[in-house]
Amino acid sequence: MKQMIYADNAATTKLDIEAFEAMKPYLLEDYANASQPYSFSRGVKKALKDSREIIAKCINAEPDEIYFTSGGTESDNWAIKGIAYNDSSRKAIITSNIEHHAVLNSCRQVERLGVPVAYLPANEEAIISPEILKQFITKQTKLVSIMMANNEVGSIQPIKELCAIAHDNGAIFHTDAVQAVGHIPVDVKAFGVDLLSASAHKFNGPKGVGFLYIKKGTKIAEHEIGGHQEQALRAGTENVAAIVGMAIALKNNCNNLAKNSELVTEIENKFKSLLSKTNIDFIVNGSKVHIPGNISLSFKNADGEMLLHRLDLLGIMVSTGAACDSKSTQISHVLQAIKASEEYAKGTIRISFGKYNSLKDAEIIVNGLIQILS
Amino acid sequence: MKQMIYADNAATTKLDIEAFEAMKPYLLEDYANASQPYSFSRGVKKALKDSREIIAKCINAEPDEIYFTSGGTESDNWAIKGIAYNDSSRKAIITSNIEHHAVLNSCRQVERLGVPVAYLPANEEAIISPEILKQFITKQTKLVSIMMANNEVGSIQPIKELCAIAHDNGAIFHTDAVQAVGHIPVDVKAFGVDLLSASAHKFNGPKGVGFLYIKKGTKIAEHEIGGHQEQALRAGTENVAAIVGMAIALKNNCNNLAKNSELVTEIENKFKSLLSKTNIDFIVNGSKVHIPGNISLSFKNADGEMLLHRLDLLGIMVSTGAACDSKSTQISHVLQAIKASEEYAKGTIRISFGKYNSLKDAEIIVNGLIQILS
Repeated sequence: MKQMIYADNAATTKLDIEAFEAMKPYLLEDYANASQPYSFSRGVKKALKDSREIIAKCINAEPDEIYFTSGGTESDNWAIKGIAYNDSSRKAIITSNIEHHAVLNSCRQVERLGVPVAYLPANEEAIISPEILKQFITKQTKLVSIMMANNEVGSIQPIKELCAIAHDNGAIFHTDAVQAVGHIPVDVKAFGVDLLSASAHKFNGPKGVGFLYIKKGTKIAEHEIGGHQEQALRAGTENVAAIVGMAIALKNNCNNLAKNSELVTEIENKFKSLLSKTNIDFIVNGSKVHIPGNISLSFKNADGEMLLHRLDLLGIMVSTGAACDSKSTQISHVLQAIKASEEYAKGTIRISFGKYNSLKDAEIIVNGLIQILS
Repeated sequence: MKQMIYADNAATTKLDIEAFEAMKPYLLEDYANASQPYSFSRGVKKALKDSREIIAKCINAEPDEIYFTSGGTESDNWAIKGIAYNDSSRKAIITSNIEHHAVLNSCRQVERLGVPVAYLPANEEAIISPEILKQFITKQTKLVSIMMANNEVGSIQPIKELCAIAHDNGAIFHTDAVQAVGHIPVDVKAFGVDLLSASAHKFNGPKGVGFLYIKKGTKIAEHEIGGHQEQALRAGTENVAAIVGMAIALKNNCNNLAKNSELVTEIENKFKSLLSKTNIDFIVNGSKVHIPGNISLSFKNADGEMLLHRLDLLGIMVSTGAACDSKSTQISHVLQAIKASEEYAKGTIRISFGKYNSLKDAEIIVNGLIQILS
């Protein structure tokens, strides 16, 4: 393959090589089923226990509050449906109009089955304000689900404040933290959240694995049933290698959070500064408070898809919006929600830098954009 | 680790080394998100397409009838709940009393929500006879779910006949083929099944991945929602490496089905013959028609758990029953279903040979049993 610049880290990330090395023994020699009582299973049981502890520590949770899943989508589906379908007198759900489709579509499903759902409008910076939640929440609200950081424009939500309002009204609070975990400090106790979704491949872990944090005492319906795995709430033979890889990747990212954040912020700043010096007409979407390295750009009278493909020809990988929406050529629900003007919105790309990018990458991408747009 | 004899292949299997080698590039270099439209995703898109074709060919399905999941438990949950909760005038479900808990517990869940479920009694060989299905099925039956091979005693069910009865009555037929796929010939068209569950780690593939075969035209509710993956029925970023590993493992097992089957049958026969020549009092549970190498043995007045641990001390890994039930010390639901006499039932172990076992292993296990029981 020719030299490639990968600037789509919000879609997925390169696996941390230490995570891969940690996975290998569990793919090759230590292949026991963790549910068996014999000695051969001892190693994999310990690996699961250690991984749970490592992950819990990274988000300041208790190990038995971490439930392994197959990824962010499953965690979000579980959180929404598991609360909606669990017995309770309260019924309504509040979410926002900029959530990932794993949350939005789960909400639409429970809505079709009679659960009232309110979709809070984000402001023009893609922020859900505590004030708007206060207007919508009632004593009938069972669950509030607001993402920690938006996957298209990167805006970081005031989770602590939103969560406090939910709790003041007796509601459960879930946050889809898929874009946040491993990238910004996440402390479930400080935030106060009851449920939190994460996905390993967004923080340099393997694909096909994630977790749902469930605060002790939170009543939630089981998601997959069968064996007794994950406290009998999420059955299925444990994916030991992937879980181990997830833990090591998260530990490495969390141990280097400041360093990584500094690097990608520097790359982001250089990129923005260089782009500002060109004659290209663009705006930056989202909030100043955003995931480091995540830049949503709208170019005046341009076409996002064309930009993506022209950059691709130059060996530069970026996204038009969320990866999961890439088959759609419409203006994304997030850009619609933040009322992006049409002459800019159609020319939107998302550049997301990660820990494996360099300052040179910023320069090359800007040069690519000059080549295409000037 | 000291020399180990692994004879618990019904719980999980050693990953095929070619499958591991095939996975590696998708864990390391080709880490793109398959949903993205740029060139870097081309390789992973092709890998998914190729894997789907390989798997489809192994069970004589069409590629777009293969839906990737996180494993057998998810596939079973999806099949049962996806049919039960999908719109229809018909309501009732028929399953058996020897199913895996992923099926049984899913049935119990839909039962609590008002769906009538009948649990067909297996005969003493752990076979569900077509006659018994005929007695239970009505025009209200929406779904019949009978496993292809039992996970404790290995008995292979008359799926073709059972499926024909379901179809004659207008019902959908699902089979949990987790113990069968990759071990005996499985032809979805010849059997006529509408839904079939499989799990990669049971046929020398990686853990955390499986598939659900859904015959074209079968109406089933989506399982995880979010992005458009798996024809928008099972959302979530594709677990490319694991899917590739699953395909290669299945292909290798299917290409060597006769050879592997011959080997494990030879090991099984040697084991039974040697054990018969001892003074140990035992019976073999299940049917003569069973998964090659899967032997459920009950020893008179013995204790299954004690046997497991004593064999473990000799470096021999076997199971008491299903891996997922191993925390329970009760007589399993399968042994209860086949009315195993109590003086034998408590002394039950399952030995399951796989393609990496040898004839020597049979001898060593029999010698171990002599040491413990004589």
